[in-house]
Amino acid sequence: MASEIKTISIIGSGNVAHHLGKAFANHVTIVSVHSRNVETGSKLAEELDGYFAEEIESILPADLYLVCVSDDEVNTVISQLPEDASIAYSSGSVSMRDIDKKKNLGVIYPLQTFSKEREIDLFQVPFFIEATSEVFGQQLFDLSWLLSRKVVFANSEMRRNLHLAAVMVNNFVNHIDFLAMKFLKSKSLEMDFLNPLIKETALKLQSLSPEAAQTGPAIRHDSKTIANHIEMLDGDTKEIYTLLTESIQKHHQK
Amino acid sequence: MASEIKTISIIGSGNVAHHLGKAFANHVTIVSVHSRNVETGSKLAEELDGYFAEEIESILPADLYLVCVSDDEVNTVISQLPEDASIAYSSGSVSMRDIDKKKNLGVIYPLQTFSKEREIDLFQVPFFIEATSEVFGQQLFDLSWLLSRKVVFANSEMRRNLHLAAVMVNNFVNHIDFLAMKFLKSKSLEMDFLNPLIKETALKLQSLSPEAAQTGPAIRHDSKTIANHIEMLDGDTKEIYTLLTESIQKHHQK
Repeated sequence: MASEIKTISIIGSGNVAHHLGKAFANHVTIVSVHSRNVETGSKLAEELDGYFAEEIESILPADLYLVCVSDDEVNTVISQLPEDASIAYSSGSVSMRDIDKKKNLGVIYPLQTFSKEREIDLFQVPFFIEATSEVFGQQLFDLSWLLSRKVVFANSEMRRNLHLAAVMVNNFVNHIDFLAMKFLKSKSLEMDFLNPLIKETALKLQSLSPEAAQTGPAIRHDSKTIANHIEMLDGDTKEIYTLLTESIQKHHQK
Repeated sequence: MASEIKTISIIGSGNVAHHLGKAFANHVTIVSVHSRNVETGSKLAEELDGYFAEEIESILPADLYLVCVSDDEVNTVISQLPEDASIAYSSGSVSMRDIDKKKNLGVIYPLQTFSKEREIDLFQVPFFIEATSEVFGQQLFDLSWLLSRKVVFANSEMRRNLHLAAVMVNNFVNHIDFLAMKFLKSKSLEMDFLNPLIKETALKLQSLSPEAAQTGPAIRHDSKTIANHIEMLDGDTKEIYTLLTESIQKHHQK
């Protein structure tokens, strides 16, 4: 059986570092936090009852170094950590192949959007685990199991696919909501009118398939309403309306 | 003061008829239901404790005829109702101008997506009211106020704009979620992995603006990840990825 991870040093002080740090702090000791951002880093260290390391060299030894930095910084940060360290990073799109080899290298990738303003219940959030060794993989699995009951081993390619899907359902959906709200604003209508609909659109998919949930002028081939809508729009919103309508009609044949 | 609406006859037995019917039945008497679909129509009539009228001519007189049929049938249905009837329809995209004049004509448009499988809390759902007379408008307002604390007068043009925004945040968002799930399925990954993220993406917008909530490779101008993602996709999903990424970058200048 793999020995337990009992101490963690965190690198990063963004949304992921904040949420994983707080959640893990309920189960293991966060010995130190390092962040280039002294303000958010020292605040997070204080909240997690750990030492704030201003320099990455002064970060304290721990059973696990948890690297929660942006994708393009993962490799640079890891290359500065001790040769014999056990390290996990939290990025969806960075392949383990692209990281300079360390003794124990792995990934803990929670498929969720985090912001400091919002509490997240991690118990249902999928955590994807990858590791250079079976023993280290098991350690990362057990550690993640403290937070979630949806822990899954996934290699870099699977994680890359999951990340792409996540970009669609989060980044793209948020942008569609942005464009719709912007449109209402341009017509002097309250953007908040959309809130219950935005919420129900997502909640519906927790129990219904998106095929079953699809409604509206596109799937009904209501060409009069579609033509009116396209007429009412301009610029990229018009292009997006047209392309998505065609796509809905293509994927749902009459 | 406008006299109260105490009896309703409903035309239609789809999702809107079902939800409005059930909600109004807690406050007023549903005297009859007519639907071309005998099966769903008679079932709804039974549930609402009203008479099922197989022919539209045999629908029972009521203070209000509530027309919940698809957009292209609204006018046909209304033209078959008695000349002196008070009538409201529930469509977002049908302008009152396009309806043959009746004595009292109006609109009750709830901005929400309804399906029979899901209970909806209507109390926060915006109801948009329009009417040919002030007195009838007040009656429709008071009736809707029984169900929701977000009742608003809106003319046909405002309603048309709201409907367009609703198509975006519901139909288009649902389709993006569909494409993401389809992509995961094609990679033999569980589609359910996305559920917590889909939910949180929507819940976040209940308190955060979509500008503040926007994250991901597009807004970060992470051209390496974007190029990888585009490489991984094909067909309309690739086109949609490209167009939405460009649109995010256009609306959020560095």
